[in-house]
Amino acid sequence: MIDPTTLTLSGLRIRATYDFHGDPAEARRRADALRVEQTIEFPADLVPDDDIQREVVGRVESLDEIGPDVVRAVVSYAVETTGWELPQLLNVLWGNSSIQPGVRLVDVALPEALLDHLPGPRFGVSGLRRLLDATDRPLLATALKPMGLSPERLAAQAYELAVGGLDLVKDDHSLANQEFAAYRERVLACSEAVRRASEDTGRRVLYLPSLNAPFDELERRLDVAVSAGVGGLLVLPGLTGLDHLRHLARSVDLPLMGHPALLGSFTASPTSGIAHGVVYGTLMRVAGADLSIFPSYGGRFSFSRDECREIATALTAPLPATAPAFPTPGGGMTLDRVPEILDFYGPDVALLIGGDLHRGESLRATAAAFRSAIGA
Amino acid sequence: MIDPTTLTLSGLRIRATYDFHGDPAEARRRADALRVEQTIEFPADLVPDDDIQREVVGRVESLDEIGPDVVRAVVSYAVETTGWELPQLLNVLWGNSSIQPGVRLVDVALPEALLDHLPGPRFGVSGLRRLLDATDRPLLATALKPMGLSPERLAAQAYELAVGGLDLVKDDHSLANQEFAAYRERVLACSEAVRRASEDTGRRVLYLPSLNAPFDELERRLDVAVSAGVGGLLVLPGLTGLDHLRHLARSVDLPLMGHPALLGSFTASPTSGIAHGVVYGTLMRVAGADLSIFPSYGGRFSFSRDECREIATALTAPLPATAPAFPTPGGGMTLDRVPEILDFYGPDVALLIGGDLHRGESLRATAAAFRSAIGA
Repeated sequence: MIDPTTLTLSGLRIRATYDFHGDPAEARRRADALRVEQTIEFPADLVPDDDIQREVVGRVESLDEIGPDVVRAVVSYAVETTGWELPQLLNVLWGNSSIQPGVRLVDVALPEALLDHLPGPRFGVSGLRRLLDATDRPLLATALKPMGLSPERLAAQAYELAVGGLDLVKDDHSLANQEFAAYRERVLACSEAVRRASEDTGRRVLYLPSLNAPFDELERRLDVAVSAGVGGLLVLPGLTGLDHLRHLARSVDLPLMGHPALLGSFTASPTSGIAHGVVYGTLMRVAGADLSIFPSYGGRFSFSRDECREIATALTAPLPATAPAFPTPGGGMTLDRVPEILDFYGPDVALLIGGDLHRGESLRATAAAFRSAIGA
Repeated sequence: MIDPTTLTLSGLRIRATYDFHGDPAEARRRADALRVEQTIEFPADLVPDDDIQREVVGRVESLDEIGPDVVRAVVSYAVETTGWELPQLLNVLWGNSSIQPGVRLVDVALPEALLDHLPGPRFGVSGLRRLLDATDRPLLATALKPMGLSPERLAAQAYELAVGGLDLVKDDHSLANQEFAAYRERVLACSEAVRRASEDTGRRVLYLPSLNAPFDELERRLDVAVSAGVGGLLVLPGLTGLDHLRHLARSVDLPLMGHPALLGSFTASPTSGIAHGVVYGTLMRVAGADLSIFPSYGGRFSFSRDECREIATALTAPLPATAPAFPTPGGGMTLDRVPEILDFYGPDVALLIGGDLHRGESLRATAAAFRSAIGA
């Protein structure tokens, strides 16, 4: 037994909801193990009845059988366990329990004092609408591709897509710093092409390069983008860390678009990992994404309508101290599906169509058709 | 159809092995979709028979039904698709396909030219053995815990554990920068305590603080650790990014211990995500971990003996330009299991026991018993 500890804590608690899949008779024991694993990771019987045992160890607030062999547990954590830092928040919510099979983190509620420490979207829905002079219509987004094209050819694509009617022209997430289209040359060429398109049409169009870079290159590549006058940034938290997104939202005055690369392994299994709404919704939003890309139902991926709804809700529902962000459904969307997608998501959405815009007589024409499809 | 592209590529290929779970009749189509998704993410029928189609798009090298409803596909990628950078390597291997259910990345073989760009372990097994004057015995590791203790109490623990016989005394992975034990005070106190223990015993003992910090604090916290004369660093790639580990291995002359926090979601489902050997073995090793922590079979977690063997093999098997790293099984190991664990892993192992050392008359005594248990 260790000696008793006295602490001064705020009493503010984070509430995390976990679904335990398996024998309901085991759920109490598993939830008890989880609340210890996520905090002190120490034999609970060796801690006296002190402030560590009572306040630092997570608390099982409720336990409900919500379906056949599924028990839902709400566990609360003292906000101080996070040190008010995002990486440690993730660690408290899911660090070691990520390793356990049969348990899924399905919801997270953060106290306002902690949300105050997190940036949330700098622009958000209303800020992006102002920036793009798009009062209430859906935003139109696309990607420059395929990998293998030269900076000049990608820039030519960017110009056509921007002139045709897109609002947001981003690098494909596969573009990093390959010799086919080195980052600096690509960013300069595409940024210039989109600026020219804006001048030619009188419409604001944003180019967002992909900030997929090694840790020690991130600041330099950011400087290249900012110097080139880009309109925003594509950020891949699965590759560069969710806290890098937070850092950008805090320090850079540009809209940020979050991409799900590598994050799919958190959501792919229905009985482990983290729920779609938490990964592509809550976490992207509190970290500062103004737009969060996810593969919509009915495309190349397998998300259900319910999962997409959950993401869109997590991005847009009222949250203290945090602006709403644009759901950005993509992943194989096509022009002919625009009405149906709008019907599902409503107008506060950024539609992301990539490859399908290349089917047609010209990129400019399909981009214009995309714009017509939303009735703008 | 886009215009044809001519590229100059090395011909060097990365080989990634994927298991497709489900109807074998669908496997060819799914593998074909994956090789496109992971590279050009563009309708393949819109790319002419050019160098993008032939070289940049991944190639299905083989397809074998290896079990009931499991087809194993080897897909190769031109090394240039990675731009020789680790985040983009992850993106090519698993970026968007992480989102698909029913497919698992089970093996990765990198060409030597790419391994030359990755640091691998700076010390590795032989370097750590030299540093610790431990010619051929297992290494002994433990964690300072529980969260909630003051820096002074953690430092007192560190002293006792070091004097008792540990080689590596690390922060518990739950220690970040909480007000209970702020990072700077904790690192100074624990580093000093372990140095004193080394002087008092004449044995080299390494203290490894947890470098779990926000993106824009990582360099400052590293400086605090280096100035305090720490013996190594605990790195959490699931929180700070795998490329942060690579950056440290490249730039800091200290042993690095990788921790699996948050990475469990990549391995928890047997039919999606990434195999244990790739996550806790290959990726940790090529990025530069000298020791890789994972929860051993028979503890609080659920890894099987086969999964643990796969990890240990990936950390130690011959690999061009890359030193072997120490498998560091933990996750609820106990003193009485030491002989069995050694029998399983062999001598090139770092045994990590945390909480169980607190069961006994004194920490110093249980630490000494741990050392006796390995016959040192």
